[in-house]
This record gives sequence, structure tokens and C-alpha cells, in this order.
Amino acid sequence: MLTNLEHIGIAVKDLAASDALFTKLFNSPPYKREEVVGEGVMTSFFRINQSKIELLEATREDSPIARFLEKKGEGIHHIAFEVDDIEAEMKRLQAEGFTLLNEKPKPGADNKLVCFLHPKGTGGVLVELCQEIVPKSQDDKERRL
Amino acid sequence: MLTNLEHIGIAVKDLAASDALFTKLFNSPPYKREEVVGEGVMTSFFRINQSKIELLEATREDSPIARFLEKKGEGIHHIAFEVDDIEAEMKRLQAEGFTLLNEKPKPGADNKLVCFLHPKGTGGVLVELCQEIVPKSQDDKERRL
Repeated sequence: MLTNLEHIGIAVKDLAASDALFTKLFNSPPYKREEVVGEGVMTSFFRINQSKIELLEATREDSPIARFLEKKGEGIHHIAFEVDDIEAEMKRLQAEGFTLLNEKPKPGADNKLVCFLHPKGTGGVLVELCQEIVPKSQDDKERRL
Repeated sequence: MLTNLEHIGIAVKDLAASDALFTKLFNSPPYKREEVVGEGVMTSFFRINQSKIELLEATREDSPIARFLEKKGEGIHHIAFEVDDIEAEMKRLQAEGFTLLNEKPKPGADNKLVCFLHPKGTGGVLVELCQEIVPKSQDDKERRL
């Protein structure tokens, strides 16, 4: 099940300039930066109440964000929904006729496993499913508490 | 101040078909339909936890949604943020260099006064500010309680 709107991803050409612009818009600065090497992006996160906005800048020419910017220019790139069991949700959506862009969950920003749905099957909207990765040391941590 | 992400607006060609598609995606049906005559749109609302997704279908050829669909096809049209004082926020953003698409707040869906910011000034993102309209009978209501 999609349990929550996790974030909105916005593709930008110049992260420093966009950080400044969105800081003005939200009247509040980003709270973190994070690189996702596998996706070829540097990200920047803003929070508005319970919602997160992620700016994405390409770090290499073959990054999906670079291709998006070339084709469509700056703008909203994806919306991400939290799921409690990403593999079960991927199976459910595939059975409903949606096309998954990755067959297995892959690491995304913000300590998440993610899967994208093809926008041709979702009314032109690039949808990301994401599930928080439970750290391997969770049991150890709990034991230490 | 932008206090909350109020909803995400998605432009669709055929509201009935998209209602069915997003019902499959969200595993939950829309909770209401509403026409906004001034904007030339019929809307449909989905809720995922605290978040709202608004589908927008054009009801006439000169509707902004009809023009968007013609130019860009189906997909995310805007993101809307709640504000507590829309006129004050419009002034603040104008002073910060943003361009307002309407000079005065206008009626939107879902009992809101709204104002749009020009996407050329917001990194390609059409941003809507919205503020709940307090019913005129609010005082009476409170007096009756």
C-alpha cells in the first residue's frame, strides 16, 4: 500500500542557484545535501511541515536527470510515495498493469530502497515507491539501549 | 509563510479513465469531484494519508489545463502550498522577485482562495498558494455553539 506522500522531486540545472531560489520561496533553507552515486545526482532537501521537497542536479551526463533536463527543462521530475513493503507493492502494481522501471528495489537518497513506475502507465507522472532501509545494526542498537 | 503542502495537481485528458487508473495506483478511490468554472476544469480528489492529489480535466478549449495538455501532455501540473495569509504571502514573494499570475487571490477548488506563481521564476514549477475560505457564517456558527 502507498501509505504516505514521501517527497516531490524537482530537476534543476544548478543546485546552488536553485537552493537560493527555493530558500526564498519557502522562506527556509534546505536541511541537507546528499549524493546518490548510482543515480548520478546530487540532492538537496527542504522540509515544509510534514512534506519534503528534493532538488536534483545531475552529476554526470548519462544521469537520468541530465536526460530529463535536456528533454523537458527544469521542473517537477517525480513524486514519491512511502510503502511499507516495497516488494509486495511492486508485485501488486505489476499485476495491475503498471510497468516497473527497475525489477528489484535499488538504493535511493535518504536511506531508502526505491522503485520507479514508467510514466507512460501512470498518466505521465513518474512515480517513485520508497521504503526506509532498516539499519542492519538495529537489533544491536536496541540491545544497547 | 508556506505552512503545508496542500496538494499536487495532475493534468489529465479523460477524468473517468484517470480516476480508474489512479484508483488502481493508490488502491483507493477518489473521495470527491468538483468543478471550478472560473478555471474551466473538473477536478477529482484522492487522499493518501495527510496528502491530497487533484486530477484536473479541462471543461473548455481555452482552459489553462487544455493549453497545458496541448503543450506538454498529461502529467504533474502544479504543486499547491497552504498559506495562513495569502495577501501577505503574495506581497512577500513579489518583493523577493517572484511573478504572480494573478494580482488578487481568486476562487479555486476545495473552498480555497488561490494565487499562482509564474513557473519561469520558480525553476519550471507551477506553484499555487492557497488559503481556506472562512465561511461568512463562521461567527454565527461560533455564537451558536
